[in-house]
Amino acid sequence: MPVATDSFTEFSIIDVFRDCCAGSRADVLLGIGDDAAVTRLPEGRELVVAADALVEGTHFLPGTAAASVGHRCLAVNLSDLAAMGATPHWATLSLAVPDADEAWVRAFADGFAGLAECHGVSLIGGDTVHGPLAVTVTVMGSMPAGEAVTRSGARPGDRLYLSGAAGRAAAGRRLLSGELPASVTGADEYLRRFSYPEPRVDLGIALAPLVTAMIDVSDGVHTDLGRLLAASSAGAAAEIPELDELERDFGDELACQLFLGGGEDYELCFSAAAGAASDIEALAQAHKIALEPIGTITETQKLCWQYRGRTVDYDGSGFEHFGA
Amino acid sequence: MPVATDSFTEFSIIDVFRDCCAGSRADVLLGIGDDAAVTRLPEGRELVVAADALVEGTHFLPGTAAASVGHRCLAVNLSDLAAMGATPHWATLSLAVPDADEAWVRAFADGFAGLAECHGVSLIGGDTVHGPLAVTVTVMGSMPAGEAVTRSGARPGDRLYLSGAAGRAAAGRRLLSGELPASVTGADEYLRRFSYPEPRVDLGIALAPLVTAMIDVSDGVHTDLGRLLAASSAGAAAEIPELDELERDFGDELACQLFLGGGEDYELCFSAAAGAASDIEALAQAHKIALEPIGTITETQKLCWQYRGRTVDYDGSGFEHFGA
Repeated sequence: MPVATDSFTEFSIIDVFRDCCAGSRADVLLGIGDDAAVTRLPEGRELVVAADALVEGTHFLPGTAAASVGHRCLAVNLSDLAAMGATPHWATLSLAVPDADEAWVRAFADGFAGLAECHGVSLIGGDTVHGPLAVTVTVMGSMPAGEAVTRSGARPGDRLYLSGAAGRAAAGRRLLSGELPASVTGADEYLRRFSYPEPRVDLGIALAPLVTAMIDVSDGVHTDLGRLLAASSAGAAAEIPELDELERDFGDELACQLFLGGGEDYELCFSAAAGAASDIEALAQAHKIALEPIGTITETQKLCWQYRGRTVDYDGSGFEHFGA
Repeated sequence: MPVATDSFTEFSIIDVFRDCCAGSRADVLLGIGDDAAVTRLPEGRELVVAADALVEGTHFLPGTAAASVGHRCLAVNLSDLAAMGATPHWATLSLAVPDADEAWVRAFADGFAGLAECHGVSLIGGDTVHGPLAVTVTVMGSMPAGEAVTRSGARPGDRLYLSGAAGRAAAGRRLLSGELPASVTGADEYLRRFSYPEPRVDLGIALAPLVTAMIDVSDGVHTDLGRLLAASSAGAAAEIPELDELERDFGDELACQLFLGGGEDYELCFSAAAGAASDIEALAQAHKIALEPIGTITETQKLCWQYRGRTVDYDGSGFEHFGA
């Protein structure tokens, strides 16, 4: 096997994942340990699938806590399913590690398992290989036939919304890399948002019947909203919500940059007909999360931003990864 | 985006895969390009899932032809589905590349697409990231409910079989790494078997109703048959089939080592009740492939090998990867 030491072979790594992450779903007919896994999809539902990788040096800094890597590699994929309104069920994991460090693998598996348990996800397969540190996760879920929410359904006049508080994860990333000072008041919160993002799984499921288009904000609000608008052949007159904490810690210009271009937030950005406003407000209260109205879909295929009533010129070059 | 040059951004890499590998399955309701893919599983069938990664320097040598990497990353996963008797439908691909070399990516996609088309597989999602060269593929397929073939069903008295001609891929790998001389008669064949293995997809589907246990031979016949026997709480009295070409090129001792320990063959090893022998022979003729009887399942939980009537002592340490 590629990873093999006397004390900790690939097989015991597999045991760690089987013990820790396999879950207890009754629809997993055959899980980790055969050539492939076998599962049963609920009747009348379609399969929804997302796959994303995290690479050391690109998506996280060398030395990042293993639990954070384990959490994030699942979170980024759960967020993609949330953006469709799908319910996650199963995951596969491919883990490349340069050496078989038992403590690292256990902490990684704990990080993965904690989030998997929150959302009832069972790890059903994958492999562990020798190589530069990288993780690929594929998440499979389901939703009622014909009800997947795409990016392309936004129509002029629809209201635009954003969940949570975007920009904080990007602040956390820049604290970690030393680009921003770690002494700011909100540091702990920013670091937590980056290292342990909360994918909006239940919110996405609840929003699905109410919205016309949805996307998760992983590459920055400007870039991802731009993708939703492009897919919908529409534009938007958009307003950055009050960036209280970010503005306090970094001033208004950098706060707006973090909000628009920062990425890694895994919040949901969506459009809905004006008539859905009260239902959306009720959902926000039920899920105890802000669902900020951030503007209106326009026919003109441009994305224009304002903050506190002033136009924000943003060139869209905000996306970045460590070392990219 | 992590991979971004003026001439060839991540988005154009995605375009290459969408143009080349998306296929035309009617059950892909939403393919590459949204947050997640949506597909429809045929009614009355279960979902079968396998995920495997290939890492440069571990699973293939630096400088390996991109088409071979594209072919193999799909082949290894199709082989896992074949070992269950499942029909493959969809795949996700996560590709980490150190730079955005258009020619490399196109050749990789061609290698992937060639094999995907052979088996009617549609690429439905994934991502491209900046990092050391590595590929992870998850393949999803289906089979009739309750009919998946596991490793655990072999019973004493069952006959053991092996498809094709194991050992040649391992010879090819050692030719590539310079461990064996490239001047041997069968060199082209060995290289082809390693670089472009043929997963036994149709054969696996046809065998499923006839066999009691099945595994694909990816880590060497000895290791993988050992796994089947362990899962079945059984042993085997096994006979290495005539290794004509390997013996001609490398002598009998090395030929046996390549057969038992070489790996990378992606042939199917399976057990079946004695009464299935004529059906299996008929399948071999219909599929134009050797299905060699290689022994009998025993109650004693030991795996004993013979070659040409002589006992072969093999310590099972034959598995290896480049650089591992």
